[in-house]
Amino acid sequence: MAQLPKHLSGDQTAINEFLDKFDVFLLDCDGVLWSGDHLFPGTVETLELLRSKGKQVVFVTNNSTKSRAEYQKKLTSMGIPSSVDEIFGSAYSSAIYIARILKLPPPKNKVFVLGESGIETELKSEGIEFIGGTDPAYRRDITPEDYKGIADGSLLDDNVGIVLAGLDFHVNYLKLSHAYHYLARGAKFLATNLDSTLPNNHAFFPGAGSISISLVNMTGQQPIALGKPSQAMMDSIEGKFQFDRKRTCMVGDRLDTDIRFGIEGKLGGTLAVLTGVSKKDEWEAEGAPVIPAYYVEKLSDLRG
Amino acid sequence: MAQLPKHLSGDQTAINEFLDKFDVFLLDCDGVLWSGDHLFPGTVETLELLRSKGKQVVFVTNNSTKSRAEYQKKLTSMGIPSSVDEIFGSAYSSAIYIARILKLPPPKNKVFVLGESGIETELKSEGIEFIGGTDPAYRRDITPEDYKGIADGSLLDDNVGIVLAGLDFHVNYLKLSHAYHYLARGAKFLATNLDSTLPNNHAFFPGAGSISISLVNMTGQQPIALGKPSQAMMDSIEGKFQFDRKRTCMVGDRLDTDIRFGIEGKLGGTLAVLTGVSKKDEWEAEGAPVIPAYYVEKLSDLRG
Repeated sequence: MAQLPKHLSGDQTAINEFLDKFDVFLLDCDGVLWSGDHLFPGTVETLELLRSKGKQVVFVTNNSTKSRAEYQKKLTSMGIPSSVDEIFGSAYSSAIYIARILKLPPPKNKVFVLGESGIETELKSEGIEFIGGTDPAYRRDITPEDYKGIADGSLLDDNVGIVLAGLDFHVNYLKLSHAYHYLARGAKFLATNLDSTLPNNHAFFPGAGSISISLVNMTGQQPIALGKPSQAMMDSIEGKFQFDRKRTCMVGDRLDTDIRFGIEGKLGGTLAVLTGVSKKDEWEAEGAPVIPAYYVEKLSDLRG
Repeated sequence: MAQLPKHLSGDQTAINEFLDKFDVFLLDCDGVLWSGDHLFPGTVETLELLRSKGKQVVFVTNNSTKSRAEYQKKLTSMGIPSSVDEIFGSAYSSAIYIARILKLPPPKNKVFVLGESGIETELKSEGIEFIGGTDPAYRRDITPEDYKGIADGSLLDDNVGIVLAGLDFHVNYLKLSHAYHYLARGAKFLATNLDSTLPNNHAFFPGAGSISISLVNMTGQQPIALGKPSQAMMDSIEGKFQFDRKRTCMVGDRLDTDIRFGIEGKLGGTLAVLTGVSKKDEWEAEGAPVIPAYYVEKLSDLRG
């Protein structure tokens, strides 16, 4: 039988041993620190405790529409002190991956973006050239001239070597047509993340993965995903922080993304919290595919 | 070994026997009658021959953006005489399926349309109520009020019982959000057709199946498809023409859609033409999944 996770809540000795094992904590946000607009009590104090013990804290989110600076504003608005350097979103993850890992030789290293300004900001921060994105020239209906120019290539940029598909609230037929033709001409296919839905107003709306799936359907290709649980995101985080994986713990509420991300990344530990999507019976079930190493009812239980 | 198709070209006895076996010919168009803007020589005369022998001719197309009347204009512009009653497109197929086969009890039988005017025209022809489609109210960016009203249902129509997804050149985040929420609330999921791409200017662009795939990805549901090779389309054709399947032959250039459509529909015969996508070696290959009953190099070979 698989080893069940160690329960830390209320066990000060176990909490101390747990905290001593790690130097870095990768923290999922929604479902861990807050839910929707509701900040969980004790979140700020728990983060203070970790920082006071010299731990590196990294907020890891699949949200691709916000840059780190924008996401930091969100953390501030929730009352959580943070610095931009502590934030790692899938837009930034994509930029790091393109600039520091993929490293396509110029000039054929331009990116066609299907997504919002957060992606553009992060690509700029890594000095990556791009087209598409929020450019109003692509926010319109397709015309007969577009069909012709896309088909014969005269309207395509020969230097595009990458298509990066994220969540695009302005997705349209023209952008999908451009993205498809770049892929058909051999561009690398990346996706910020593959979440099929996005929570909003306590309901679900189309997520980044439900945009890129159109391109998957047309090309038969799967993108390299730069969000959890893809290990390309872990590589990106490591590309920036150079941390020791054995001294790092992933904290999250979802077994299939957060905890799986930590386990497949061979981190020293994973901590599940019960304030979000996954429940205890998921890992207690016979043949549970993903079992965290530790769990607490809520993040603030780490304060003892 | 599977039976290879009978080759009819140049064999007048075989052609006569073939023609005598059928009363109805279901004809795919692009790749059979024409290619792009190029009408194949002898197409008009071959259709005249079939009609002179009292055969019923039906033009069967997966194109969902055009109504039958619009498609008839296209046939006329190609120089092909036809009547609206001889045309069967996937938009009309969907309308027939909804009105004559699905028959949801009112009032919860309204359709949310993701698609163009061809679908709307055909739904109207069958007296089906619908929303969405080409309504300008849906051709815009999503707003915070939309998120709220879609999430709490106040912006949704309680009488929508069906989501019909076709090719929508104006697809956007707002429409996908509406469609998803109707499906999440239990609406039936139909698709005019599942073609992943659409030929245009001798290149490929997103097809109807690359629009509906976003909803498949979000809901985990597969739609009932009303285009070839789906048998729901055959049921729709039968719902209108009441033909004898054993006396009907499907003619097409694609084994995986046209010929498969005819075989799975248990028609009396299938005729492949070599003027389109599929080539002879496809059915000659070991373990070929789809083998037509007859083939000709080109449709006009039927003139002998």
